[in-house]
Amino acid sequence: MWKTAITKIENEKIFVRGYELTELMESCTFGDIVLLMATGKMPHLHQGKLMEAILVSCCDQGPLPPSTNAARFVASCGVPLQAAVAAGILGFGDHHGGAIESCAKLLQEKVASAEKDKIDRIADDTISEFAAKKDRLPGFGHAYLEVDPRAEKLLQIARKHISPHRHIDLLQALEERLIQEKGRHLAANINGAVAAAISDLGVDWQMGRGIFIISRSLGLIVHALEEMKLEKPYKKVSIEDMEYIGPEEKEVPIRLEPS
Amino acid sequence: MWKTAITKIENEKIFVRGYELTELMESCTFGDIVLLMATGKMPHLHQGKLMEAILVSCCDQGPLPPSTNAARFVASCGVPLQAAVAAGILGFGDHHGGAIESCAKLLQEKVASAEKDKIDRIADDTISEFAAKKDRLPGFGHAYLEVDPRAEKLLQIARKHISPHRHIDLLQALEERLIQEKGRHLAANINGAVAAAISDLGVDWQMGRGIFIISRSLGLIVHALEEMKLEKPYKKVSIEDMEYIGPEEKEVPIRLEPS
Amino acid sequence: MWKTAITKIENEKIFVRGYELTELMESCTFGDIVLLMATGKMPHLHQGKLMEAILVSCCDQGPLPPSTNAARFVASCGVPLQAAVAAGILGFGDHHGGAIESCAKLLQEKVASAEKDKIDRIADDTISEFAAKKDRLPGFGHAYLEVDPRAEKLLQIARKHISPHRHIDLLQALEERLIQEKGRHLAANINGAVAAAISDLGVDWQMGRGIFIISRSLGLIVHALEEMKLEKPYKKVSIEDMEYIGPEEKEVPIRLEPS
Amino acid sequence: MWKTAITKIENEKIFVRGYELTELMESCTFGDIVLLMATGKMPHLHQGKLMEAILVSCCDQGPLPPSTNAARFVASCGVPLQAAVAAGILGFGDHHGGAIESCAKLLQEKVASAEKDKIDRIADDTISEFAAKKDRLPGFGHAYLEVDPRAEKLLQIARKHISPHRHIDLLQALEERLIQEKGRHLAANINGAVAAAISDLGVDWQMGRGIFIISRSLGLIVHALEEMKLEKPYKKVSIEDMEYIGPEEKEVPIRLEPS
Repeated sequence: MWKTAITKIENEKIFVRGYELTELMESCTFGDIVLLMATGKMPHLHQGKLMEAILVSCCDQGPLPPSTNAARFVASCGVPLQAAVAAGILGFGDHHGGAIESCAKLLQEKVASAEKDKIDRIADDTISEFAAKKDRLPGFGHAYLEVDPRAEKLLQIARKHISPHRHIDLLQALEERLIQEKGRHLAANINGAVAAAISDLGVDWQMGRGIFIISRSLGLIVHALEEMKLEKPYKKVSIEDMEYIGPEEKEVPIRLEPS
Repeated sequence: MWKTAITKIENEKIFVRGYELTELMESCTFGDIVLLMATGKMPHLHQGKLMEAILVSCCDQGPLPPSTNAARFVASCGVPLQAAVAAGILGFGDHHGGAIESCAKLLQEKVASAEKDKIDRIADDTISEFAAKKDRLPGFGHAYLEVDPRAEKLLQIARKHISPHRHIDLLQALEERLIQEKGRHLAANINGAVAAAISDLGVDWQMGRGIFIISRSLGLIVHALEEMKLEKPYKKVSIEDMEYIGPEEKEVPIRLEPS
Repeated sequence: MWKTAITKIENEKIFVRGYELTELMESCTFGDIVLLMATGKMPHLHQGKLMEAILVSCCDQGPLPPSTNAARFVASCGVPLQAAVAAGILGFGDHHGGAIESCAKLLQEKVASAEKDKIDRIADDTISEFAAKKDRLPGFGHAYLEVDPRAEKLLQIARKHISPHRHIDLLQALEERLIQEKGRHLAANINGAVAAAISDLGVDWQMGRGIFIISRSLGLIVHALEEMKLEKPYKKVSIEDMEYIGPEEKEVPIRLEPS
Repeated sequence: MWKTAITKIENEKIFVRGYELTELMESCTFGDIVLLMATGKMPHLHQGKLMEAILVSCCDQGPLPPSTNAARFVASCGVPLQAAVAAGILGFGDHHGGAIESCAKLLQEKVASAEKDKIDRIADDTISEFAAKKDRLPGFGHAYLEVDPRAEKLLQIARKHISPHRHIDLLQALEERLIQEKGRHLAANINGAVAAAISDLGVDWQMGRGIFIISRSLGLIVHALEEMKLEKPYKKVSIEDMEYIGPEEKEVPIRLEPS
């Protein structure tokens, strides 16, 4: 019933992607294991370090994002921790973390399809392509911040740890063009930077949202525990924060059967 | 692997608790089937009608409860409908709908343990018992409303449809004592009324939260769809609604290894 | 913060789509309220009855579907009921209940776009269209059953309760063509029948998955409670049911830093 | 509306527990940040390394645990990744990962309440206490493995990195007594080892389940992606794996009203 290439359990031992788990515990960081499980290959030390920085970069953004709101509302209801965290994770949809996936897909497809091309040429084409379909490039701009400081820092760390880094090059080439055209508020955001970094680490774009889930689950957990410990049960919005825009009061028409 | 007393699939037919599903579709209401599945017995028409009224009574309470907030925040994130609804349902914990369960447990235990006793005597004892342990009786009082109009109406409908109704009698005997002692705001709420009504319908208290899930999932669905259709993606709390109470800014101490 | 056209809370009263909830409790079935909340309009008695039959039709399919499996596995882990139910509901994706949505979308678009056309003509065009793109029509065929008895019964009940029923007519015209071409196993399934019935009830296709969630949550709840009461905690697949197809055992290469 | 001591957003910068996130990205591992967010204090390098080993130790246990089953069943249903992962996380209840929490609570209470006592004395008392109430000590024994190799390795790594380690001492004192009395299959399992290690790292027991969520979410993600890529949609249990133990087929009694 369950066929898997991930983990083997045999003779009282657990093997992950072929390596004995107890040995991995001794010689690998969690970032290494994220890469090992995602790609099937043991990463170099520098690849593992970059993955650690990625995991740090997305760990929390305060109580503002909708996922954290969902987690804290649920945490106030008298539930076990995992229920509040799951509610938050459910929010990691196309509009929240999902841009890592779509941006990584874009970068991976563009870099793969035009391998010998110059990055600049791909960037120009991509900008034109999105302009033509009046679509927004995923991974640029931020809801709260004018420029996302995490993105710049992550790209800098990535350039230090790995080379070549053609996906990062493409992301930055796109960024240059967007800023030139539309202003600084369209710099690469953390989603874009993570997308480029994991692409250069050999991670499939489908895993992009997964990296975000692992990292941000930390923030969700700590927020849920804070809500449980410090706030009153059953967090409620005040009645004044609600505006009713529906139909006026009316009589229920006569309907004989139900009662 | 799966042993079950609920549903049989045989010869291209589906049987629920022994009855062919297509026949149930023709002769039963959904309220009937909730009772059939919960108790294993085909209810009388009046029992089914009371269950329908119960399902109607809990269907929505506007966008204020934490479950609805969680569902709408998640719905704003670019996710399929079921993800937003699941996030809301996760909030049906001990402080939100859970009182149906605890109140039904209390009523069922009290009524069962003292069958020949007078209801008044049980009510007096229960009040004393909770006073002694300084605990609040579940199923009384409401967060927004002074008196919960749904509770009164549901108990009235229940008395019309079924008899005897010893659990309702006990709930109302408790209510009388609480109001006398502490005021009208401690009248039975909808959780208490549902708890008493399902108890008189022969439904185990463990199913209490389940009844609430079925009914309120309707409200969650309609709110999630409203959020998806009418509001902008990625619903965000404004930065002014956040108050930081943590430690001051400080330097990261020198830690040589990671980068 | 919360703008809504669904529910108003005012002067200690709750109004749903303009009607006072306590009055709805007295004169409406749950099926009526599903329609009222979904469409904003008070349904006729026969429309409400059809909705009740729809809710009955999807209530359970035994322990076989992946959603029920997920709910029962989670229920075995020592969690509150709502967590197990939410896990099951998360499975109501594009391949599980989602066909109600896609089939209803198809039927509503076809019927709306060609109002004066004959149903037969639309059916022919739709069959050709899907054949050309080598796509499968949603709402036909069943994973376990040769013919889905619930579909036939639901369509029969629907024809009795409402008229006209152009979406049902289109579904059945499509079914005729599919059966003629490919055999009886491509008869309309319950997803298709529900899609057609809710379309004739004036329910938007986006709500299709919602109807399924409400109905099937009943099955998930009863299965989760059965698992909790009758089975041992931590339901586990036996090690023999697992087949490892990954890489052979290998040594962890020397990686100096982590420990 | 949101008061928090976790994260501050100010002047285009994000501060976590007082430290600027971009600086943390440069000098900390993810394990460091887990500790920083959980305890509010910047850990020493060795504490961070132990946390990394903890995160590695729980990352996967193959497709056998109920959480992984739930995640893979949901993953087969045509849903986004986060929905499958959330379904798996919902299974981290009292019987699955929850022992980290209960074991850490026990160790922390025992060590705190008897600080000057000898560990051996506390261990003897705890064994007697649990024997008296016929309860099982959380954190010992394993469902599949005779001895859990991860536990032994983790305790060894922990002893190398931190000192004193009174919670680990207590866990091992309890283990000695259990093995002597009941055999090797009652050695500390990974839950017990993680519980002791995080306790010596100064992490509150309430966070225990959180550590497991972060680590195992990696396994859930990789399994969900494997299911989506390699298996057919709508994973279904075969009808032969189901055993019906409910009532015999019977006629629906005459019930006039519903249709």
